[in-house]
Amino acid sequence: MAEDRPVFSGMSLSHLERVLVRLLVGIGMRQKDARPVAWAYTVMTGRAIGHHDVSGFPGLLSRLEKGTLAARPNIRVVKDSAAVAVLDGDGAPGPLAAYRTMECALRKARSYGVGFACVRNSSHFLGAAPYALLAAQHGMIGIAASNTIPTMGTGASADRAIGNNPWGFSAPGENFPFLFDICNAYASYGKLHQYAAAGWKIPDCWGLDRRGKPTTDPKEVLDKGVPLPVAGHKGFGISVLVELLTAALSGGALTDEILENSRRGDNFSQAALALDIRRFLPVRRFRLKAGEMERRLKAHPLLDEDNPTLLPGERSFRALQRIKEQGVALSESTVIRLNEWCRKLNIGPEGCPARKER
Amino acid sequence: MAEDRPVFSGMSLSHLERVLVRLLVGIGMRQKDARPVAWAYTVMTGRAIGHHDVSGFPGLLSRLEKGTLAARPNIRVVKDSAAVAVLDGDGAPGPLAAYRTMECALRKARSYGVGFACVRNSSHFLGAAPYALLAAQHGMIGIAASNTIPTMGTGASADRAIGNNPWGFSAPGENFPFLFDICNAYASYGKLHQYAAAGWKIPDCWGLDRRGKPTTDPKEVLDKGVPLPVAGHKGFGISVLVELLTAALSGGALTDEILENSRRGDNFSQAALALDIRRFLPVRRFRLKAGEMERRLKAHPLLDEDNPTLLPGERSFRALQRIKEQGVALSESTVIRLNEWCRKLNIGPEGCPARKER
Repeated sequence: MAEDRPVFSGMSLSHLERVLVRLLVGIGMRQKDARPVAWAYTVMTGRAIGHHDVSGFPGLLSRLEKGTLAARPNIRVVKDSAAVAVLDGDGAPGPLAAYRTMECALRKARSYGVGFACVRNSSHFLGAAPYALLAAQHGMIGIAASNTIPTMGTGASADRAIGNNPWGFSAPGENFPFLFDICNAYASYGKLHQYAAAGWKIPDCWGLDRRGKPTTDPKEVLDKGVPLPVAGHKGFGISVLVELLTAALSGGALTDEILENSRRGDNFSQAALALDIRRFLPVRRFRLKAGEMERRLKAHPLLDEDNPTLLPGERSFRALQRIKEQGVALSESTVIRLNEWCRKLNIGPEGCPARKER
Repeated sequence: MAEDRPVFSGMSLSHLERVLVRLLVGIGMRQKDARPVAWAYTVMTGRAIGHHDVSGFPGLLSRLEKGTLAARPNIRVVKDSAAVAVLDGDGAPGPLAAYRTMECALRKARSYGVGFACVRNSSHFLGAAPYALLAAQHGMIGIAASNTIPTMGTGASADRAIGNNPWGFSAPGENFPFLFDICNAYASYGKLHQYAAAGWKIPDCWGLDRRGKPTTDPKEVLDKGVPLPVAGHKGFGISVLVELLTAALSGGALTDEILENSRRGDNFSQAALALDIRRFLPVRRFRLKAGEMERRLKAHPLLDEDNPTLLPGERSFRALQRIKEQGVALSESTVIRLNEWCRKLNIGPEGCPARKER
């Protein structure tokens, strides 16, 4: 898609974050709720993975405008019991509900060493990275997970039967924070779309076409085909665990009970676990230990000198450093759509993502 | 291996467990420590996966005799802080250290809703299943993990650089307990040995030969080749998480610092997490919710009517039912070796695994 090539690269991430906050407040969100949502989109954009980032932000604004997501949700703790809690997201944007859930787990972990919280009546949370990273920024190990609509086969099913149920972790590291954010299929829809757009083939273990046959064409998987769980029962089992930790414990919706873009609420569920490293050893010593692991792993000979062993979060950390030097790369269509929303919500030029001179 | 076909099928699991307790006490373990070790071997044997089960028990006895594992370890809590704890395994057999670690996490979870414990100076724990299952038997969700000697490539390394770091979970279910026990490589060594013994090929994504080339011959992977992490960075990242939760938090050994069969101690590390379901909803309602998920997943059309969608733990639960009806199947070599140990430790005929009449 020629019109979707990155054209704008001058804006800083912090400028982008301010624009997103203004847009969310413009559409009716409270400032205190707009900030975590804008931050989550900014973190995902800073990872430079090309999906579940600011390119989806105009879609969020549309849903808030239509009311299929609550702009002023009453997110509340419905069960609070020592180191664990259940929240009700009240139809909030997923990034807000997931952020509040990890905040709750972090408070619990500060008090007890470990904390766990889950939330029902949430929606798509973009990815696990922002909420896990929040824990690492507080000197903790964080694990975040979400269920989602059926997007993956069970390994035995001929159709999509369970969410690819993204999850991830973060922890402080010596040179960069560990940051891991995956789904339990070989490839997320975002990745399949990237391969399709680039005209690349996929390995035939990644998915089935609509007739249930393995295919190397990502378009055939996207078009009513079936993405497959990593290593069959392994990825499927992890998705089942995520359903139990998110929906079963929170009283949320399971697998094909989950809706999308519904006025009755999407009813995704999320979970957050936080472990306070200070209860085990000084965070500084944990970082050194993490660095020791990194050095040991990198000391091994490589299959290909140009492809070093990268620790979880290392690639995205380098992407973030580049973005901090060069600014964000946004596609032309994203810039156009964000500017349309700026005009619509009366956000002046100082707040807009200006088109870069060419 | 013709001499290794199952020949003994009359003994019950509980008889087997009593034999193992007597052997462990015979070699010098305390009764209270022998029981969990025998139980862990019995659980693994009841899963009928054919490795990391009682066939390895004579090897455990040899190590206890030689003193490379401590028969009377002083397993102690070295850090105890609200809902988290660190244990020192004092060179105990891995199943004992891992069992005590999950017991500790369960106590914490009973008090706080969630509990986490990790242990250093442990050894190989067989698999995550027994310790996770212990949590489910107490109405909790349990997650257990272990690091291990480098057994897997990083995805970029030309040699084995990190453990395949087994982990798993269990939770109460409606018809059987969920039970999930995997390593982060496509195939454990046990599975590679099974394929090699059967003369089967493996998919070429499972591992590299000693020259770093993908191979479909399991023997080439076993012979100084490199098992590969599931889905590249995904399996590698999970192994890194396990290192952080086990060794980094407990002060244990990392990746190639870990030893095996060493007089200085193997220094594996394990971790256990327990979530008390009662703090969220009645366990009965959790079971119903789990059953609802199972029904929804099984309602989807199948690729092959003979291969239904199996939930984690369903296959091993059926295997256990068969064993309860028909008795355990042990290989002839295992029966011979167990009986040699019975003679050596003066355990009378009533305690021995008798050879079945043929």
